[in-house]
Amino acid sequence: MLEAKVYITLKKTVADPQGLTIKHALESLEYKEVKQVRIGKLVILQLDMNDEEEAKKRLDQMCQKLLANSIIEDYTFELAPVN
Amino acid sequence: MLEAKVYITLKKTVADPQGLTIKHALESLEYKEVKQVRIGKLVILQLDMNDEEEAKKRLDQMCQKLLANSIIEDYTFELAPVN
Repeated sequence: MLEAKVYITLKKTVADPQGLTIKHALESLEYKEVKQVRIGKLVILQLDMNDEEEAKKRLDQMCQKLLANSIIEDYTFELAPVN
Repeated sequence: MLEAKVYITLKKTVADPQGLTIKHALESLEYKEVKQVRIGKLVILQLDMNDEEEAKKRLDQMCQKLLANSIIEDYTFELAPVN
């Protein structure tokens, strides 16, 4: 069994109004040190397989087909064995 | 300058319909190895400060006050210096 953590973030050139709203909210709570906020998604998958190389290939496909929108988003992932 | 990555996940006991929908979509794309999908949020903050201990304290407050809903969500974060 493998656990995959997929981190999906907006590309740097894409505006992030949700991040901006959170930045303003933090500023109004006096967290003036916050200079930028960007929001991303975290997708945690349990995979019933043990071959990490094969899992990487299939995760790459899943990200491209479904999880991420490659026009506006980047993704990275980590794989680790779980019991 | 510090970069904080905050990972916000639903507590294990909280239902995750969005994760379930993605699991079903992956199944219909023949990714039968996917046994569970849970969705979380990733918040990336640029902090104009260098004291990591102080940053941890303030991030903890930000998570509790605004970023996470501690009734249904857990959070963890990582801090790293950036240029």
